[in-house]
Amino acid sequence: MNLNDNVLLADIGNTYFHVYDGSKVEHLLYEDAIGRYKDKVLYYISVNHHLASEIENIALWKNISSLVSIKGEYETMGVDRKVLCLSHDSGVFVDAGSAITVDVVEKGVYMGGFILPGLKVYAESYKSISSVLDIALNKALKLDRLPTTTKDGISYGIIASIKALIDQHREGKTLYFTGGDGKFLSSFFEEVIYDEMLVFDGMKKALRAN
Amino acid sequence: MNLNDNVLLADIGNTYFHVYDGSKVEHLLYEDAIGRYKDKVLYYISVNHHLASEIENIALWKNISSLVSIKGEYETMGVDRKVLCLSHDSGVFVDAGSAITVDVVEKGVYMGGFILPGLKVYAESYKSISSVLDIALNKALKLDRLPTTTKDGISYGIIASIKALIDQHREGKTLYFTGGDGKFLSSFFEEVIYDEMLVFDGMKKALRAN
Repeated sequence: MNLNDNVLLADIGNTYFHVYDGSKVEHLLYEDAIGRYKDKVLYYISVNHHLASEIENIALWKNISSLVSIKGEYETMGVDRKVLCLSHDSGVFVDAGSAITVDVVEKGVYMGGFILPGLKVYAESYKSISSVLDIALNKALKLDRLPTTTKDGISYGIIASIKALIDQHREGKTLYFTGGDGKFLSSFFEEVIYDEMLVFDGMKKALRAN
Repeated sequence: MNLNDNVLLADIGNTYFHVYDGSKVEHLLYEDAIGRYKDKVLYYISVNHHLASEIENIALWKNISSLVSIKGEYETMGVDRKVLCLSHDSGVFVDAGSAITVDVVEKGVYMGGFILPGLKVYAESYKSISSVLDIALNKALKLDRLPTTTKDGISYGIIASIKALIDQHREGKTLYFTGGDGKFLSSFFEEVIYDEMLVFDGMKKALRAN
């Protein structure tokens, strides 16, 4: 398998199609991505099972999921988490998308991780409990004092609980963020790296190893 | 207003109708509770707006929400949270029901709090992201090591993030649990008090103060 800067890399998630064209990352709707790139060579990973049969029929696209592995991985571990964990030798890797996955890697070995609802899914879940809890996340939330409004009580519950659990697992490791809400979520942490290339860096590493 | 052991107390939530009859607490469906108690004197608080018109027409039932206040309360604070906070002079109060509310009280003054989705709502929210994440909470989860399965990764995400944020706010205060999932959730904490009477103790205090 040839890897050069002309090959397109795609990370097909539950909501968006993320494409790296060698210089920038684009986040597209499925049909837009297929329409635009179906006649180009593209290597992809996908966690979107609904889309599988449609994209498997595209002749120039190749699913590289079977090439992706990390020491310590578990059987049903999502391929998107595996490539993210391959991006750096050690770290805590947070992918904040439809779901928020948090994975710990030490010297190339996967140590385990956990899954939280994505920020939009959190907000939706409160709405399902009561119309009184149907609020938009306060994006300017401060975490330095206990909230005294419903809007802030919900926003704080979401952000501060995610932060508290991630901080518990840092233990001196570098904390990496990626994903659609990665930049926003990372703003509540000290000394972190936000990088939308992490998944593609991991894909490149998996391709080079094969 | 007369308060004696013959008066029924009810806490009408988003899912259940909780009644204290002077000796025990029952958790009933709305229609069952109305059918059984509509001819008895009953003092209630309610956060269920759908039910308001139906229960306001019951002659022997009295909504005591307007009698309930705690120093430091905020304008839209749920009456169920206020009575819970009245139950003890100081503490961290966790009500784990349809939503999980966490409120901090110091020497009778409400300091603030936050709201998390209830355990069932958390589990439902993962299901909405992907069928791969449609799992039942692992009730035997251990928090002492990072998970390496999807089921445990989700269960850990839910329980450990709730626990991490609550533990951050203990600061030497007593931690009280109540609500349908209160007993289960409290099992993940050290030195806590689970008491299904807390809300009713707070209601009694509010009634005595008037």
